[in-house]
Amino acid sequence: MLTLYYAPRTCSLATHIALEDARADYTTVRIDFAKTEQQSPDYLKINPKARVPALVTERGVLTETPAMLAYVAQRFPAAGLAPLDDPFAFAEVQVFNSYLCSTVHVAHAHRMRGHRWVAADDKAAIAAMQKKVPQSVGAGFELIEREMLKGPWVMGERYTICDPYLFTLAQWLEADGVDPARIPRVIDHRRRVGERAAVRKVIADEFSTHR
Amino acid sequence: MLTLYYAPRTCSLATHIALEDARADYTTVRIDFAKTEQQSPDYLKINPKARVPALVTERGVLTETPAMLAYVAQRFPAAGLAPLDDPFAFAEVQVFNSYLCSTVHVAHAHRMRGHRWVAADDKAAIAAMQKKVPQSVGAGFELIEREMLKGPWVMGERYTICDPYLFTLAQWLEADGVDPARIPRVIDHRRRVGERAAVRKVIADEFSTHR
Repeated sequence: MLTLYYAPRTCSLATHIALEDARADYTTVRIDFAKTEQQSPDYLKINPKARVPALVTERGVLTETPAMLAYVAQRFPAAGLAPLDDPFAFAEVQVFNSYLCSTVHVAHAHRMRGHRWVAADDKAAIAAMQKKVPQSVGAGFELIEREMLKGPWVMGERYTICDPYLFTLAQWLEADGVDPARIPRVIDHRRRVGERAAVRKVIADEFSTHR
Repeated sequence: MLTLYYAPRTCSLATHIALEDARADYTTVRIDFAKTEQQSPDYLKINPKARVPALVTERGVLTETPAMLAYVAQRFPAAGLAPLDDPFAFAEVQVFNSYLCSTVHVAHAHRMRGHRWVAADDKAAIAAMQKKVPQSVGAGFELIEREMLKGPWVMGERYTICDPYLFTLAQWLEADGVDPARIPRVIDHRRRVGERAAVRKVIADEFSTHR
């Protein structure tokens, strides 16, 4: 049994979808950012980084979305979520997911998490970071549009762990000030991923109010 | 044959060391940042991200250090650079390398690449970012010291692709204003990796002046 610690509207959605895609036996625990539960002593024992997601396994806790997605693909090989027998093709999956994690998500984080990189009370610097987000996030998505998204899925004919991750980060692009008209292939991809039954189930679960 | 595009004093050192550790058949091409060769039309054909490293293989180009390191480990399994037959242990390797890439390296980059996240002419915001680097990079290394570096190598008894990557980022910590006395295990690890013959060979190659 796997347990995913997640919060709505965060990158934990990608791993949540992958677990559903894999038909894994898993459960979820919602972390309430409004109550800063991610900084509670109990949660810090699970993930000392004080962030979501975290995936509790029988052998220990995993964090970092690219690592968790690759783990889901490797643990549930029958789901076919990554080209596990081809080191180059597997590396291409990792290249894509690492770019999302270290460039696109990081650029996005400068809109609401600027205190990570400047003093929290430096309002001018926080505002300067927010101002650049449409350009920096936009540049990331434009590179994906032009060079990386093979189509119809990220890696071509086969749906992989890259798809729920791109879908997850693409949820935020309008709020980040990126003009969707500049990235029609990304937008079309987002629509098609969002129509998948597993994705609809996960989103309904994350946004249900009675738990 | 593999070709690594690299620049001295960048994270490309990690993959360069891994290729040497793996006894791979590879060659290197130095990219001169002083001449902004990383933005030249010829290099953009290799890596449209305009960054190093890039690894040219028979099947295409790979980027992103965590992906390249895993590829080297998988392509040269005899070198034993990652626990390839154990999805959980392999995921732990990926967790560590993803953290270096998306948190520690990103924090470091705010010292000299602040223009990625604010307007390049906003000197106050650039300075505000630089001021936070000792704290943000320091927090990353302290988490590694306390929670992640198992010892003697990052993953325990076995040297893996995590070790050259940590060694590479640890080259920069004094310049980033991090007090080495706060992270003695990281410093001891850096010393021991630096004594390895493969690492000495790679560093001598990267810093030779006659090529």
